Amino acid sequence: MEKKQETIKNLKRLGSKVTGDIEKGENPSLDVPIRTLSNVKYDPTRKMITMGSGMAKRYFFNVGHVRKFVQTVEAAALAKELNEMNKHLSLREAFYRMKRTLPDSNINLVDEQEESNEAIEDLELITGASRELLHVNANKLGSIAGKVVIEDKGDVIDWSKLGSGGWSIPSNVEDIVFKKVDAKFIIYLEKAAEWERLHEDRVWEKLNCIIISSQGQATRGIRRLLQRLHLEYKLPVYILVDGDPWGAYIYSVIKYGSISLAHISQELAIPGARMLGLTAEDVVKYDLKKHIIKFEEVDIKRLEQVKNYDWFKDNKEWQKQFKLWKELNGKVELAALASKGITFISDHYIPDKIKNKEFLD
Amino acid sequence: MEKKQETIKNLKRLGSKVTGDIEKGENPSLDVPIRTLSNVKYDPTRKMITMGSGMAKRYFFNVGHVRKFVQTVEAAALAKELNEMNKHLSLREAFYRMKRTLPDSNINLVDEQEESNEAIEDLELITGASRELLHVNANKLGSIAGKVVIEDKGDVIDWSKLGSGGWSIPSNVEDIVFKKVDAKFIIYLEKAAEWERLHEDRVWEKLNCIIISSQGQATRGIRRLLQRLHLEYKLPVYILVDGDPWGAYIYSVIKYGSISLAHISQELAIPGARMLGLTAEDVVKYDLKKHIIKFEEVDIKRLEQVKNYDWFKDNKEWQKQFKLWKELNGKVELAALASKGITFISDHYIPDKIKNKEFLD
Repeated sequence: MEKKQETIKNLKRLGSKVTGDIEKGENPSLDVPIRTLSNVKYDPTRKMITMGSGMAKRYFFNVGHVRKFVQTVEAAALAKELNEMNKHLSLREAFYRMKRTLPDSNINLVDEQEESNEAIEDLELITGASRELLHVNANKLGSIAGKVVIEDKGDVIDWSKLGSGGWSIPSNVEDIVFKKVDAKFIIYLEKAAEWERLHEDRVWEKLNCIIISSQGQATRGIRRLLQRLHLEYKLPVYILVDGDPWGAYIYSVIKYGSISLAHISQELAIPGARMLGLTAEDVVKYDLKKHIIKFEEVDIKRLEQVKNYDWFKDNKEWQKQFKLWKELNGKVELAALASKGITFISDHYIPDKIKNKEFLD
Repeated sequence: MEKKQETIKNLKRLGSKVTGDIEKGENPSLDVPIRTLSNVKYDPTRKMITMGSGMAKRYFFNVGHVRKFVQTVEAAALAKELNEMNKHLSLREAFYRMKRTLPDSNINLVDEQEESNEAIEDLELITGASRELLHVNANKLGSIAGKVVIEDKGDVIDWSKLGSGGWSIPSNVEDIVFKKVDAKFIIYLEKAAEWERLHEDRVWEKLNCIIISSQGQATRGIRRLLQRLHLEYKLPVYILVDGDPWGAYIYSVIKYGSISLAHISQELAIPGARMLGLTAEDVVKYDLKKHIIKFEEVDIKRLEQVKNYDWFKDNKEWQKQFKLWKELNGKVELAALASKGITFISDHYIPDKIKNKEFLD
């Protein structure tokens, strides 16, 4: 609830700034950090994709600024209403909520979701409050299991007692209270099917860890949950993705953040996260060559792109990975480990790699 | 466990048939129901997409048959092993498991997942056991909340006490035991964001129902869970999808089944399911015209296709819907109801429609 009061205070400050300008007879303005690519960079010291300090002034009495100015103020009003009501909206619902027609006109405040999204992102920057604190939610996805007890919305939930399904991760994990965390580390899985594999084999119980999955790219809710457990309980985070440039990128977003959400890296990135697999060396060691799925042009292109990202390009271990993948000229999926045995990934691959500290950093 | 013994018995029967043929010196053969489109039809009496009775014989000593024959037998061996181990595999893992190289050759038993999928589907038909009973799982997706207590894998899980996340639906729900079902009906939602809307507003508590979501098309796990609750507890199933031909199709798959899974309609289809919204009439009644997203060519094409499906083409109410959508010439999303109020869908739209029995059948 502290955070909520802080957010409302921040939003009110924005409103007071604007009404203050009006009372003083000045052109109402907002200071907005610049979000263009030129103001985004990888910070090797903090190991995070961060925003520079570039700022721009946005004026009400300026034909080029007024639409964005009003949209930002509307987003602030909506965020304040949501916080006061203690309700949340999805980005899509927020768009519809902001898409109102201005009185005595046929002008909609927003016409495309891109506009409301940008207004909300600007608001994150202006107020320093993440979208989650503004009560606008991203997509909901993913499952979790492990020896952790949480409290959420008045319910006490034991992640180790939820049958074959596990707990469904909400889009917003800000209000979750951790009551008891017995797990020693976290395994993040790119694929829901691999999560079911590990869950059925009770890996979280045998290795005393937490298992968490998305389906493809990790959502903000998943990333925040990983980060909170990592920071608040010092739990190591191990990433398991398919062996291909797309997997490497999923790993890098969890670890370093992303360009489009650079302004919020502080709340999402986990520089301490490490890659457990699947590595190019695994393909040889575990005899998976026959399961290589030949790269298509789009994969080769992606490999070149990912290889040259600032956060990878000076990393010798990763450059070696990319070189090996290029030589293998194809990807290998985590599921291919099933060829070694139904529970091979759970009984051998993961425990062995963790025991031998075979991580990529 | 009864079902498991039954499945193993069915699989053994298949094996005995083949070894029996060998012992008798006959050409080993399997009787496989035909799964081509010509053998699939909509049965208006049962209100289900079903398979005809066409059968084909598949021989071992037949150059055109042998590959499929061996794949089917391999799938049966794998399913037996999985049942005996009490383990499950995803379709993808099953593919890798079956992709072994035959001794003294460079021939893989399967080269593409399409082959292992087909072998498993054939096995469903031959044994009468669904893929779930064969222990091969489809994708995992979706969340559920409501006044229901289940037992699963030895855990007792109360779907009304799982915080903001809800229970994460597993890919396989065959072994779930319902301990207590207080809910009176089920609301299925196409979008996870709308599920979060209803969950935050505690619709399941206020209306005493179950809320369940996928993201897009419902998975087999979700459909089976809906069907089990519908059949075992006589709970009405109300479908909420976006107002467009894609939403209509999601509804029709839950209700009537699908062509590709026609052989398993009995285990998946819910002829009693009804559409709650979003209807073309809603667009007018709830003043949503300004939120219409103009159809693109692909939407118009899809509308024509869906309109002409056997299960829709003689349904007057649905033909009227399709006509109205064509006139509106665009789709309207459930999220657009947020324009009427943050909790409008939960406080007014859904309760009013249910009270007034505004269903499409």
